[in-house]
Amino acid sequence: MATPILYDCDPGHDDAIALVMAHRSPAIDLLGVTTTCGNAELERTTANAIRVLDFLGATDVPVAAGCARPLARPLVLGTADGPSGMDGSPYLPEPKRGPIAQHAVDFLAEKLAAAAEPMTVVATGPLTNIGLLVLKHPEVLSKIKELIWMGGVFYRKSEIITPTEFNAFCDPESLKIVLDSGVPITMVGLDVTMQVLIEADQYEELGRIDTQLGKLVMDWLRFYEKLHRNSMGVGGAMHDPLALALVIDPTLVRTRPVHIGVDLNGTYTFGATVADFWKERGEPDNARIAYEVDADRFFKLMFDLLR
Amino acid sequence: MATPILYDCDPGHDDAIALVMAHRSPAIDLLGVTTTCGNAELERTTANAIRVLDFLGATDVPVAAGCARPLARPLVLGTADGPSGMDGSPYLPEPKRGPIAQHAVDFLAEKLAAAAEPMTVVATGPLTNIGLLVLKHPEVLSKIKELIWMGGVFYRKSEIITPTEFNAFCDPESLKIVLDSGVPITMVGLDVTMQVLIEADQYEELGRIDTQLGKLVMDWLRFYEKLHRNSMGVGGAMHDPLALALVIDPTLVRTRPVHIGVDLNGTYTFGATVADFWKERGEPDNARIAYEVDADRFFKLMFDLLR
Amino acid sequence: MATPILYDCDPGHDDAIALVMAHRSPAIDLLGVTTTCGNAELERTTANAIRVLDFLGATDVPVAAGCARPLARPLVLGTADGPSGMDGSPYLPEPKRGPIAQHAVDFLAEKLAAAAEPMTVVATGPLTNIGLLVLKHPEVLSKIKELIWMGGVFYRKSEIITPTEFNAFCDPESLKIVLDSGVPITMVGLDVTMQVLIEADQYEELGRIDTQLGKLVMDWLRFYEKLHRNSMGVGGAMHDPLALALVIDPTLVRTRPVHIGVDLNGTYTFGATVADFWKERGEPDNARIAYEVDADRFFKLMFDLLR
Amino acid sequence: MATPILYDCDPGHDDAIALVMAHRSPAIDLLGVTTTCGNAELERTTANAIRVLDFLGATDVPVAAGCARPLARPLVLGTADGPSGMDGSPYLPEPKRGPIAQHAVDFLAEKLAAAAEPMTVVATGPLTNIGLLVLKHPEVLSKIKELIWMGGVFYRKSEIITPTEFNAFCDPESLKIVLDSGVPITMVGLDVTMQVLIEADQYEELGRIDTQLGKLVMDWLRFYEKLHRNSMGVGGAMHDPLALALVIDPTLVRTRPVHIGVDLNGTYTFGATVADFWKERGEPDNARIAYEVDADRFFKLMFDLLR
Repeated sequence: MATPILYDCDPGHDDAIALVMAHRSPAIDLLGVTTTCGNAELERTTANAIRVLDFLGATDVPVAAGCARPLARPLVLGTADGPSGMDGSPYLPEPKRGPIAQHAVDFLAEKLAAAAEPMTVVATGPLTNIGLLVLKHPEVLSKIKELIWMGGVFYRKSEIITPTEFNAFCDPESLKIVLDSGVPITMVGLDVTMQVLIEADQYEELGRIDTQLGKLVMDWLRFYEKLHRNSMGVGGAMHDPLALALVIDPTLVRTRPVHIGVDLNGTYTFGATVADFWKERGEPDNARIAYEVDADRFFKLMFDLLR
Repeated sequence: MATPILYDCDPGHDDAIALVMAHRSPAIDLLGVTTTCGNAELERTTANAIRVLDFLGATDVPVAAGCARPLARPLVLGTADGPSGMDGSPYLPEPKRGPIAQHAVDFLAEKLAAAAEPMTVVATGPLTNIGLLVLKHPEVLSKIKELIWMGGVFYRKSEIITPTEFNAFCDPESLKIVLDSGVPITMVGLDVTMQVLIEADQYEELGRIDTQLGKLVMDWLRFYEKLHRNSMGVGGAMHDPLALALVIDPTLVRTRPVHIGVDLNGTYTFGATVADFWKERGEPDNARIAYEVDADRFFKLMFDLLR
Repeated sequence: MATPILYDCDPGHDDAIALVMAHRSPAIDLLGVTTTCGNAELERTTANAIRVLDFLGATDVPVAAGCARPLARPLVLGTADGPSGMDGSPYLPEPKRGPIAQHAVDFLAEKLAAAAEPMTVVATGPLTNIGLLVLKHPEVLSKIKELIWMGGVFYRKSEIITPTEFNAFCDPESLKIVLDSGVPITMVGLDVTMQVLIEADQYEELGRIDTQLGKLVMDWLRFYEKLHRNSMGVGGAMHDPLALALVIDPTLVRTRPVHIGVDLNGTYTFGATVADFWKERGEPDNARIAYEVDADRFFKLMFDLLR
Repeated sequence: MATPILYDCDPGHDDAIALVMAHRSPAIDLLGVTTTCGNAELERTTANAIRVLDFLGATDVPVAAGCARPLARPLVLGTADGPSGMDGSPYLPEPKRGPIAQHAVDFLAEKLAAAAEPMTVVATGPLTNIGLLVLKHPEVLSKIKELIWMGGVFYRKSEIITPTEFNAFCDPESLKIVLDSGVPITMVGLDVTMQVLIEADQYEELGRIDTQLGKLVMDWLRFYEKLHRNSMGVGGAMHDPLALALVIDPTLVRTRPVHIGVDLNGTYTFGATVADFWKERGEPDNARIAYEVDADRFFKLMFDLLR
């Protein structure tokens, strides 16, 4: 039976691939998509989500636009996806519909309230919408079975300019609100996502998918890789697809429970996610973090869904 | 012609008196009341608002409950009003209705969107609801003609334990969001509200109002004065009534435009509202602050409305 | 019997008047002067101290130069005394001697170590030298009977641009080190020093002192008043002379013991001195603060010493 | 010709090995040792330095004790060396001399002032003494040719509980003062020191050194390894010996110039050393950081000196 999910994202090339996977996987029932700013402004990420869904024929999946800025900081945009948030998609048509009238936060609250069973929420952008959900609708939080979040980092790569992951850096206050909320969180950070990289083998595999979709993803990756290498030092990490893939197969990563603190005050380090592996802070675990990934099995799953 | 207003509050004895004034003044058309936590938990402040309105016969004024916690900090409750937020009201009946189903933030957004002309919003508690409105509904902000806020302080009284005013201390992040939003703000801080004190003269005047309402307000003040003196060093400042009174007569105070910074990081001083009177920070004015008040005229107006 | 003191200062017009008083009072035995930056750069404050002492014929009072910058922040200079730190002293000769070879911190350590009885230290500038003394010579701290410090504020005047007093603002880290050191501190802040103002009466009194010294002090005050009014809103507060006067007559002010926290992190409020009058923080008292002053008696004492 | 150095340390097993190397290397002329707190209290680290030097017969190398606490934070002691700072040295005699009367900061200032040419300073503990030197004796800073500092980290290992290196964590304010001082700094951080680990091969090599010194170092390492593994996840990193070795052979590591920011405000991350490899902050380089090490050549040099 398919797992119903709500997906909060900021496409973004890798969010877009995750969207494709969510739509095409028989194991997932994509109940709705909500958008936030991050990889690009809200208008663009919303349009991008709609363009991808419509290209896939998923015109019935509702898209609700959310917050146009982080909770308590000025908006900083990511740079790995180009100004449109999804540069390098010349063949993708412009959106033919707009988002629904309902705000993302209200859409999430309504869907969760209406769910018979607690549901999985996947989030692959800054957590502003989820943070506002916690503030505005505490009554539905018990209906979140698991929040799978792409973000954070525990292992600071030498050449990364901020010691923080972008989604955490972008809205650390929302992240803290969510971490403190009691919602069960699985954190899929750079520690694992920087280990699922598109390299020569993957390009070859992708090149063999001779469909319009295959070509579109190839276009995206060619573009994304270059900018990603620029900002992250390596090319084409499948950050968001890995988070989404855990809905289908949670065994792709190994996780452990931990207390994650997020720094709000650091001059250079606000947004740093500091895991208390040794229980020294005496605070209860508030998340499971993914620390190991089976990259081969992930890519197999991803390519199977793209084929 | 009456000025239509939306009133966001956390009753609170002085919020309650402001509610009485708003309902009874022919100069005001009270379109709705939204509630927040602060003087007490949200459930209590909401019940208190309803109890006061129903006592006044204002059963048609909708009350929408808002946020049950500040944006990014743990909830700290005020102490000047007792655990119920309105202790000392033995004759006030329990609420016979609940709040409307709509969340305060959505109620405010809808009313503002529907207004033909930009409207006045009065807020006399922590600014969480207004902060969320800015984040979630930037499209209605241009419909706020003026936000009259009771809060902040520029003149630090020697015996006040925090160098910050309670509403600012309680949710400084929301305050900053609102100050940065471009909404025209009039800040009615302790600088002026600590000059409208209930003293012997006022008690005498109030004692002459031989109605149920007069007695209720007397009950409130007897209770409020003692606790207020405890926390603020002087008894019975009419904080919220003064803010509300400015809708009726803006000339009760003198104001000047200024840039207000709110400190979010101070160990002891988070929530401090620091006014740049000398334009040294080079940031544009973001509020008008009230720095002088005509206490006699204020009390005349207040007692006229209570009679 | 005269009280031996060590005096750490950054002259500064009002430090200079305090120096005059210290030298002329039979109740004080001025063992040495140490200098710090603050009202002007170290070189200038050191030269100013020497010029004043030499003018008084106190050529045997050693002057030791201290730190040229605050502990952990960039140097910010005061503005109330002009670029030289003592503008408006045309008749005061240039210094004919330099400071002694010993650093202020070492001079203080040596004098305290050598003292038979614990001694009084007066400080009327940023506390950098005293902070370094605490760090470098903890073994002499028990020889400080009392540190009388001009600085801090508990009562935030409406028109002061920073919510902090300058000496605290200039080096809050040193202030915290000293407050945490266990040294008995009397804090003489703006709360009392802004109540000993040079006004028409004082100018008249001063005008009657027909000596070279009287003329010099008149020159200083004419200059100082204008700049002080600029930065503080009122003219000519006798900040440092009041602190010094407490060596002669501690009853000029009323004090109470309290825990003083100093904010190091605030964006606008670093250096704010927050007194816990109500023992809410549960931390032990670390200072006595002066909260009331007998201005008439202070001025009598000051003018007697100038005559 | 031997390079004259001043060595500031907090022995500490690995400081002790560095001391041995400094004394035995013909390439180094050890002019003096200054001590700070960190691995243990100042009294213990001072005694430990003297015990090691005396054991080596270096009874003429002066030891000057420095600061007994960090600049602006409470003292936190390291845990990798046991309470004495050098546990597991049963055969090492108690110190027969004390430190010299001069404070470490004054000793450093005097030696630098007296040096004909700018000198190398090695520091392998928290930078409190060097920070105070910058504050108190800016006039000698131009006499520091290079400060080789063991501390900091750019590559955050997943299982390290603080995202900061201990020496930086212990006194971040001093570190910032030193980084801002203009002194040429080579930073030898965990990035390289965690790559020179005592493993089976090294123990074997060490076991073949059949001298009293060989046995002492073996005792130290057996003890140190266990505690180090506890706190750092791997056993026996030769942090301080690597820093010292660079005096003898700077080519053991590869370095690059960079601007290092140190975070003073982070809740979890104060002391984090954030390198701006991409020149995004627009601040000038203030250090060279070591990013690659030739471990084999380092161990050859170390064992040659122990033999």
